Amino acid sequence: MSNGHSRKSLQIIPLGGLEQIGMNITAFVYEDTIVVVDCGLAFPEDEMLGIDLVIPDITYLLEHADKVKGFVITHGHEDHIGALPYVLRELNVPVYATRLTVAMIEGKLKEHGLYDVTECHVVDYGDTVHLGDLGVEFIRTNHSIANSSALAIHSPVGCVVHTGDFKVDYTPVYGDPIDLARFSQLGQKGVLALLCDSTNAERPGFTNSERTVGTAIDSIFADHTNCRILVSTFASNVDRVQQIMDSAHKYGRKVVVEGRSMVNIIQTASELGYIRIPENTLIDIGELDNYPDEKTVIITTGSQGESMAALSRIATNIHKKVTIKPGDLVIFSSNPIPGNEKAVFRVINELCQKGADVIFQDTHVSGHACQEEIKLIYSLVKPKYAIPVHGEYRHLKAQANIARMMGIPSDHIKILSSGDVLSINSRECKVTDTVKTGAVFVDGLGVGDVGNAVMRDRQILSQDGMILILLTMEKGSNRLLAGPDIITRGFIYVKESDELLEEMQKVLEDTTEDLLQKNITDWGKIKNALRDALSGYVWKKMKRKPMILSVITEVEI
Amino acid sequence: MSNGHSRKSLQIIPLGGLEQIGMNITAFVYEDTIVVVDCGLAFPEDEMLGIDLVIPDITYLLEHADKVKGFVITHGHEDHIGALPYVLRELNVPVYATRLTVAMIEGKLKEHGLYDVTECHVVDYGDTVHLGDLGVEFIRTNHSIANSSALAIHSPVGCVVHTGDFKVDYTPVYGDPIDLARFSQLGQKGVLALLCDSTNAERPGFTNSERTVGTAIDSIFADHTNCRILVSTFASNVDRVQQIMDSAHKYGRKVVVEGRSMVNIIQTASELGYIRIPENTLIDIGELDNYPDEKTVIITTGSQGESMAALSRIATNIHKKVTIKPGDLVIFSSNPIPGNEKAVFRVINELCQKGADVIFQDTHVSGHACQEEIKLIYSLVKPKYAIPVHGEYRHLKAQANIARMMGIPSDHIKILSSGDVLSINSRECKVTDTVKTGAVFVDGLGVGDVGNAVMRDRQILSQDGMILILLTMEKGSNRLLAGPDIITRGFIYVKESDELLEEMQKVLEDTTEDLLQKNITDWGKIKNALRDALSGYVWKKMKRKPMILSVITEVEI
Repeated sequence: MSNGHSRKSLQIIPLGGLEQIGMNITAFVYEDTIVVVDCGLAFPEDEMLGIDLVIPDITYLLEHADKVKGFVITHGHEDHIGALPYVLRELNVPVYATRLTVAMIEGKLKEHGLYDVTECHVVDYGDTVHLGDLGVEFIRTNHSIANSSALAIHSPVGCVVHTGDFKVDYTPVYGDPIDLARFSQLGQKGVLALLCDSTNAERPGFTNSERTVGTAIDSIFADHTNCRILVSTFASNVDRVQQIMDSAHKYGRKVVVEGRSMVNIIQTASELGYIRIPENTLIDIGELDNYPDEKTVIITTGSQGESMAALSRIATNIHKKVTIKPGDLVIFSSNPIPGNEKAVFRVINELCQKGADVIFQDTHVSGHACQEEIKLIYSLVKPKYAIPVHGEYRHLKAQANIARMMGIPSDHIKILSSGDVLSINSRECKVTDTVKTGAVFVDGLGVGDVGNAVMRDRQILSQDGMILILLTMEKGSNRLLAGPDIITRGFIYVKESDELLEEMQKVLEDTTEDLLQKNITDWGKIKNALRDALSGYVWKKMKRKPMILSVITEVEI
Repeated sequence: MSNGHSRKSLQIIPLGGLEQIGMNITAFVYEDTIVVVDCGLAFPEDEMLGIDLVIPDITYLLEHADKVKGFVITHGHEDHIGALPYVLRELNVPVYATRLTVAMIEGKLKEHGLYDVTECHVVDYGDTVHLGDLGVEFIRTNHSIANSSALAIHSPVGCVVHTGDFKVDYTPVYGDPIDLARFSQLGQKGVLALLCDSTNAERPGFTNSERTVGTAIDSIFADHTNCRILVSTFASNVDRVQQIMDSAHKYGRKVVVEGRSMVNIIQTASELGYIRIPENTLIDIGELDNYPDEKTVIITTGSQGESMAALSRIATNIHKKVTIKPGDLVIFSSNPIPGNEKAVFRVINELCQKGADVIFQDTHVSGHACQEEIKLIYSLVKPKYAIPVHGEYRHLKAQANIARMMGIPSDHIKILSSGDVLSINSRECKVTDTVKTGAVFVDGLGVGDVGNAVMRDRQILSQDGMILILLTMEKGSNRLLAGPDIITRGFIYVKESDELLEEMQKVLEDTTEDLLQKNITDWGKIKNALRDALSGYVWKKMKRKPMILSVITEVEI
């Protein structure tokens, strides 16, 4: 091996802008080839006021656009595919994924008018896609959405295994268990690095099979034969919906699927054969009244308490077709994602107040591997380097601990930050560079036009509202033509605060008079002086800091 | 018994304005006597922008001020005492509570300058306070704060038991177990109604003793003798702090208490003998550097991820005296309260990134009774009527189910809404009236000056910011002197949106010209037309709805 060749390396670059909020997008770079694994979006944090979505900053990819051979996608969840419609618009390269995943991506591309201009390729498990110097092999896994894949990325300097999001389910509802044999074969040939899902790395044991949920739901159906049943779960968990439908069919109930995203996914999954809808079971929501309550099931979105989802609208009586009746049974087949607890409990309280019985425990299993499954993958893949992925820092750290327990030396375990360029080959594994990454805010139709300064203004406005000081002055002279006037929004209830407003007015008038008497003609100074005077008064009097704008209008007479 | 007398009843009125956000305040009314149990505040929900605290609307009490004999307080948590400084200012009546509770109330009154004008009485367990026609007996309970009480409210029509917040701890860290004997005696004499804590009514089993946490913490101390330890917990959990200090002492560590509220409470508890600080254990934070890391413990506030609390400041490197070092062990001796999960995990991630090890499981027990404890109280008290209190609706409903299981007929179980007037006597138990209640927002020094209209403005401002349209016109004529000008805040990043702003400007100029040509002189119409034109344009172009203010300044020339 020549020195020149031995120094070549594969670079792995996580591009998911914000730390730990779940935009999955990772570039694999070898010489003139860039392949990108996943292209997810994130939902905004509480402090990102008015933001609808967050997508990754792909500056790095655009700067190397000629090298980017394509996106390979592990599965169809939003945090893995959601940013594609935004990114493909700027970087039109082919997309490779399994059949159901491609169908879900195409659904998004149609909504964004990009379907005709994007090249999507369906890949079967076991197939390898050759993209420049890299070969990407799709390996069957299990997860909370059907047709998920791990990827083996074959490069001239070695093979890297990326698990995607996965669990080990020996008895999956649809299809076969994870292809452990292939993980083992790769491990025997030698794997340079393992990028493994860390979501449940803090949890001991083994994640239960999806089938255990079916059993739990079935026994609830058996125990509740005299009431209507509503079941809320994740729209994309097709296997869950399958099991609910099977129980419904078994107990002679008709099924309504409600919620736009769930209707779409179930239709797609049904067309492609990923769900088998029992005959004469599915009915239209309009037909509900034709059946007695105890012969119906409504499967809905909204298990995370999302305010516009079907279940929330049902709970708050603003759903057009379904109203909660005393005695209804509502099953939450989901756990709240951290941050959604209050919203979920709010919906549960609403349902209880309307007389429904609510079951929200022991009717869900995770789609992610716990500690023993992670250990299983390490023991099969036997990677030289461990790169924990997918999770908050505490999860990545927990997986690093597992990797150490599995015998990987500490200096072969790398927790990466967004933008880190990790260069690996058989000799070394180190961060050699960093590239620009970041979060791009999507607000309405605008992508990236809301930045930190705008966000800071929204935060100030949201806390104490704003006060506007208006002054009109004659151009070229120092003559006050109108004002100072005050307008407030989001500050105080004005009618009850006449006295306060009068005092504020007086502060401004005194300040203005003082400035004019001193013949101060610099309007910038006047604006600042008025703002400071009012700001000081409001803070002293109320301990509040509204945004204060002082505006001088210049009039030529 | 005369008919006249038999129709008299005791009225129970929950006054905690908002449903289920935890302001505990309940009026007990008998003829000309009103006694109020607890007077708590709530922390704002996410959508209450800029609000610091929420307190109850006491209109009802003020309207009957001459009848209000006093406040009786069950324990010193914020959701039971926090509104006292605001309420006593308007309704100055005596306050009755146990010794530590009075000390905590007095601390608050001092901060608000009300200490000298308020009458606070210390009550011992077993004592009965006579207030008009009602006698209020204090009964020892266990909870996550020392010196907690249940109350037996003796009235001419019967006795009502209010548990306050409680658990059954047979081996409490300080003092004695809950006075089950007294509950039993009351039950034998006959209890009209039981108002029982519902917080954990969904949880089966029995809440563990506080001592089990001490054992868990002690074994962590035993396992970690080579690093500094930080323990974060609730400031008011004096027994928890006691156990941490005992372990520290046992393993030869010095203790620093950090966080204003914790320092205050520990000092008060120590003065009153509710905590025994081991000799030569407590040191000042400034002395930390005099001891090796493995010989120190820092007990801090911030276990809920509160951004300004000590632990958050330490985690984000903005604490003046303490910086996280790799190898530090941080123990969260707390569970996240629903809604705080993300904030807590954020702090944990920060700590992990700085190299700390974090333990946040199995180092906390609840202060509230689980199902078996609730059943125990029902079996002892044997109430005629059950009125579940303290909790969200789902918790109240879960307790109603327990009450039914304990043999109470469904029509003797009442879940009340805020403002319901429940009239009870030996013959009946029904809601006979409703009174005005509500939530009063505290923002800075302002109490009640931020209402729904202001909140709505803040919400609009927070979502898409605001646009200001300025026009200056001559008084008495229709002549445009200046404008239309545009100012935006929190809307878009202006420098990158020159083109958009130019188009917005053009929309306004065209609209203005059109209006002036049509000789429209009604300034209200002009303002609305400009706002509507711009609003329509922005929605079409960006799908956003900023607040738009159009202001016309009138100038006399």
